[in-house]
Amino acid sequence: MIQFQCDYNEGAHPEIMKRLLETNMEQTVGYGMDPYCAQAKEAIKTACQSADADIHFLVGGTQANTTVIASILRPYQGVICADTGHINVHETGAIEHTGHKVIALPNKEGKISARQIEETIKSHLSEGEPEHLVQPAMVYISYPTEIGTIYTKKELTDISAVCHKYDIPLFLDGARLGYGLTSEAADITLPELSSLVDVFYIGGTKVGALFGEAVVINNPKLKKGFRYHIKQQGGMLAKGRLLGIQFLTLFTDNLYFKISEHANKLAMEIRKAFETKGCPTLVDSPTNQQFPILTNEMMKKLGEKYIYSLWQKIDDDHTAVRFCTSWATSEQNVKQLIEDISNL
Amino acid sequence: MIQFQCDYNEGAHPEIMKRLLETNMEQTVGYGMDPYCAQAKEAIKTACQSADADIHFLVGGTQANTTVIASILRPYQGVICADTGHINVHETGAIEHTGHKVIALPNKEGKISARQIEETIKSHLSEGEPEHLVQPAMVYISYPTEIGTIYTKKELTDISAVCHKYDIPLFLDGARLGYGLTSEAADITLPELSSLVDVFYIGGTKVGALFGEAVVINNPKLKKGFRYHIKQQGGMLAKGRLLGIQFLTLFTDNLYFKISEHANKLAMEIRKAFETKGCPTLVDSPTNQQFPILTNEMMKKLGEKYIYSLWQKIDDDHTAVRFCTSWATSEQNVKQLIEDISNL
Amino acid sequence: MIQFQCDYNEGAHPEIMKRLLETNMEQTVGYGMDPYCAQAKEAIKTACQSADADIHFLVGGTQANTTVIASILRPYQGVICADTGHINVHETGAIEHTGHKVIALPNKEGKISARQIEETIKSHLSEGEPEHLVQPAMVYISYPTEIGTIYTKKELTDISAVCHKYDIPLFLDGARLGYGLTSEAADITLPELSSLVDVFYIGGTKVGALFGEAVVINNPKLKKGFRYHIKQQGGMLAKGRLLGIQFLTLFTDNLYFKISEHANKLAMEIRKAFETKGCPTLVDSPTNQQFPILTNEMMKKLGEKYIYSLWQKIDDDHTAVRFCTSWATSEQNVKQLIEDISNL
Amino acid sequence: MIQFQCDYNEGAHPEIMKRLLETNMEQTVGYGMDPYCAQAKEAIKTACQSADADIHFLVGGTQANTTVIASILRPYQGVICADTGHINVHETGAIEHTGHKVIALPNKEGKISARQIEETIKSHLSEGEPEHLVQPAMVYISYPTEIGTIYTKKELTDISAVCHKYDIPLFLDGARLGYGLTSEAADITLPELSSLVDVFYIGGTKVGALFGEAVVINNPKLKKGFRYHIKQQGGMLAKGRLLGIQFLTLFTDNLYFKISEHANKLAMEIRKAFETKGCPTLVDSPTNQQFPILTNEMMKKLGEKYIYSLWQKIDDDHTAVRFCTSWATSEQNVKQLIEDISNL
Repeated sequence: MIQFQCDYNEGAHPEIMKRLLETNMEQTVGYGMDPYCAQAKEAIKTACQSADADIHFLVGGTQANTTVIASILRPYQGVICADTGHINVHETGAIEHTGHKVIALPNKEGKISARQIEETIKSHLSEGEPEHLVQPAMVYISYPTEIGTIYTKKELTDISAVCHKYDIPLFLDGARLGYGLTSEAADITLPELSSLVDVFYIGGTKVGALFGEAVVINNPKLKKGFRYHIKQQGGMLAKGRLLGIQFLTLFTDNLYFKISEHANKLAMEIRKAFETKGCPTLVDSPTNQQFPILTNEMMKKLGEKYIYSLWQKIDDDHTAVRFCTSWATSEQNVKQLIEDISNL
Repeated sequence: MIQFQCDYNEGAHPEIMKRLLETNMEQTVGYGMDPYCAQAKEAIKTACQSADADIHFLVGGTQANTTVIASILRPYQGVICADTGHINVHETGAIEHTGHKVIALPNKEGKISARQIEETIKSHLSEGEPEHLVQPAMVYISYPTEIGTIYTKKELTDISAVCHKYDIPLFLDGARLGYGLTSEAADITLPELSSLVDVFYIGGTKVGALFGEAVVINNPKLKKGFRYHIKQQGGMLAKGRLLGIQFLTLFTDNLYFKISEHANKLAMEIRKAFETKGCPTLVDSPTNQQFPILTNEMMKKLGEKYIYSLWQKIDDDHTAVRFCTSWATSEQNVKQLIEDISNL
Repeated sequence: MIQFQCDYNEGAHPEIMKRLLETNMEQTVGYGMDPYCAQAKEAIKTACQSADADIHFLVGGTQANTTVIASILRPYQGVICADTGHINVHETGAIEHTGHKVIALPNKEGKISARQIEETIKSHLSEGEPEHLVQPAMVYISYPTEIGTIYTKKELTDISAVCHKYDIPLFLDGARLGYGLTSEAADITLPELSSLVDVFYIGGTKVGALFGEAVVINNPKLKKGFRYHIKQQGGMLAKGRLLGIQFLTLFTDNLYFKISEHANKLAMEIRKAFETKGCPTLVDSPTNQQFPILTNEMMKKLGEKYIYSLWQKIDDDHTAVRFCTSWATSEQNVKQLIEDISNL
Repeated sequence: MIQFQCDYNEGAHPEIMKRLLETNMEQTVGYGMDPYCAQAKEAIKTACQSADADIHFLVGGTQANTTVIASILRPYQGVICADTGHINVHETGAIEHTGHKVIALPNKEGKISARQIEETIKSHLSEGEPEHLVQPAMVYISYPTEIGTIYTKKELTDISAVCHKYDIPLFLDGARLGYGLTSEAADITLPELSSLVDVFYIGGTKVGALFGEAVVINNPKLKKGFRYHIKQQGGMLAKGRLLGIQFLTLFTDNLYFKISEHANKLAMEIRKAFETKGCPTLVDSPTNQQFPILTNEMMKKLGEKYIYSLWQKIDDDHTAVRFCTSWATSEQNVKQLIEDISNL
């Protein structure tokens, strides 16, 4: 079976494996204080053009999200996000477990707008007795979103402006950041994106690494005590250099973006094949996740050879499914899939 | 100014004050282990026809809700409720602060249905990887709801059946229980209601007491360690007998229901006055909270003499407001109000 | 049986009951925004000579402790206290439930010293990798302590200085504050005490009120969002004026101190009676709690007529027990007790 | 500089790196549901002779500890451990962050005894009002302990018996399990150890893996919902097979024990060298951590060439330091060190 159900089916990019192997028996101090982490931080700061940022490497996405959010909010504060947001749906309540309400707003193609955010903030603060309500004190967005869409520069700029207006940090979940920034639909660069948010993370797990996410803290007010938070949330790797080596490799010779581009290119080919076959997509995703709507028969036929994930039942005969590509997807497998689609 | 904005504007029913005064210098042991609490528990068990129930007296509604919910759920579990539910909106995230997600469903006149609950449970459990989602493990409803409506016996029976089917406890918030059960629209008795839920509480704060809520635990599996939970959540009163004396008084000679009936009767008179004047109500509430939709001019005029609360803006010229009656509302004030309404 | 086991056996001071009765049917707004709370706050500010303090009335001691602590600490921070401190022993882990470690130091007569505090802070911060340890970020002390002893002005001044040196708030639990300040051994006034701490509370439950504690926040940095914290922790009373009326009464005509003095005077008489009888005390307490060490026979004899609490087994034939007086203790009961002691 | 300061200075055992490389481009499903995890679980069950155990692979030690503890305790319960225990000292309050008190008992050479545990349980439950105290509901021990010592079979059997008597789960932290079980002082096998505890984990991070710990749940009552807990605590690796492959390798051909034995052998040689030189050890550790007490001059001299960690100041001229060996320590480096010690 050929697997397209997610973007973490394989190990790491060969270049990363090579570096891990080469450095395997070196001795370094633990917990991210080693030279590889230091170099990787410099490489990321350069890529973001954020010389003053604090960079931290965390083990995974759940930790990145819970650690950043728990480090910012006071007990009575909550975080605004799309109702489809990862922290609202797919973290087993990890955010609430740290004591905070996720204030979920109705999404439009996976996104929320500056206007929605402002209305939410105003409605929570304008009550006569605001202390009976959770105080919205942070905004969480994903780039790309859970369903592969991306915010435009204009949309991000507007959200950023609202957040500044109310002095509320903006946090961007970049678990699939590479796939977003290298999308043909993207109209923003990494430095521009970085300049619009208070804190964000660059996803490694889904973009070439064995595991790991790089949190970038731009807002100086959010830097204090962050290593304590990482440790407490279980996100601090003893052999921290493993994260440093991986991110250093990804941010050397533009590797992170090259492999992301590869995934997007193949995703577009798959999408085109489905469209040519007359299958509409659930949403207009310009990144590595595609959501064609298939008939039951198509699903059965493709299911004999491919693994994909079920996304949303449309009607008795139609279901939206997800096909993902990644840095690891082979051109050959995609070619085969496209042929099989055209033969449906 | 005459106040109709809520149902906790006054102190306690005179009979309660009398008993508190009579017993003031008696010496009793603390933390609810005194004879008055024991007697009050017996009186409540009799009223509920639940000989085997555990009764606990807590200081207030936030504690009642957080303590019951935190005592039942495991860390990865959440509680289903209406999006208008008190725990979802007006507890400053106290439930999330204990680590649990509130799984909010769209309400219909303040209520949720057995069908909605079942669909939610099924959708959370049927996923291929259910452990990425919060597990729904408890249902919270209010009787009456936040907007004064009440569930029918049939609706409660259906919800109870779904909860049993999935082995999920049903918790009923009865902060205004008296006003619900004595409503002309009510088709259920206290013992019937008690028999349909695993745990509920009888509100004192809004129905005659200075403060205090009586939690009734019917399901034996939920009884273990409850006093520890109360203490940890700050709901255990040192001079616990104050709660015992108040509830004993309320459950002597049917006082709790008599004073509730009084409030409902006056609320219906106010509603009729508004309807006669041509003011529709936001929702068809048969209990002590009424939500007439007023014009700006009416609001201004009534605002010169009465305090009411703003509820929901309808359009530029209309707003739904809330008028509450309670055990303490005087017939004279209501008569005056009705006259002023008819003169609008 | 005459009860001496604690200082919350009775209701409230008659003057409080009188005021509650007189105001019972008045209408006021809820949640502490009423005129009585406003007046009580002024009275307390005057008594503390702290014109700029924020005053909040909370339902009980557990809430006062958890709310203040949770409002100050970040998730990775802990609170230093004596191992005998109430928050370390008798709150069912309520502090840990809000996510924070209680860093317990060995007590000396219920107290901790400035030196101990400084050493703890230094040892936690000087480690090479301090982020692996909880960060001490607050000091909690009680006045009087759990065993009735009191800090001298010198001791408090030294502790305060250390806290300032490391920019760590000092929180004083005054559940029995009146009994401390009116002790003959006390060398500090309420304004002096207030000036030495960042935040403290004035206990009502054990000193004349039905219930309630008044939190006084002196440090402006600790004021933000406190009402949110109170609400979330369940410490905000719907009929908030009940707290206002009680504290206004206690801080009118010096009532709080007069009734405290009464309790101390009687406690000293009881202590003298035990000492005359040859019973040593476990600790030299100059306040309303006394800890005589009794033989088994004495315990049995006194137990026929009095309730006291067991404190600490000394050896097979001796046990330290606790006799408490309070604002409510009658001179007659004490006279009787003294006679019975002398007849042992 | 040659590093002896900890046992996680290098990457992974070459055999593990080889297998990771070989499998790198294979496609598997995520989150530990892949064939490698399944095989690794079987291998561990065989090694433990625990056919009915549930095995889960977690990212790291902090997660293993917090996840196991949070999955067992109710909110009002705490965990008993040695005051030197990792969860009491070196997890930045991660246990308290999940809401639970760590009930720390004075250690003797890093260990606690069955008698201490029983006394603690009894003292907490025998109080008149036990609900004012945290309820001890779990025991945590480490094997080896933080300072390298190990429990005897007799000691473990006694602790296990007390836990059974009070129906309290026993949890064993095996972050360095291999070094304990292969110590010459060990009188217990892995299956015997497994049979005495309700849940334990086999450490990978410090014993040959890049990272990862294998939790073994023997008590059926503790199995429910564990995957939810892992996910919520951030311990579930997306590319879960990385953990499966590592543990499968470690539990093939006895590799886990062979490499542990290697570390112990070298540690004993280092210890002997220090003893020969007249340096006493802080504690009699038979495992891979050694704590010689050095003079300032010795520290300086050795510090020119080696990194070790400071452990405890003894007096102005003496400090106990830690030298660790691991699976990765080379015989050559140890030989060099021994020579340098003898030349001190």
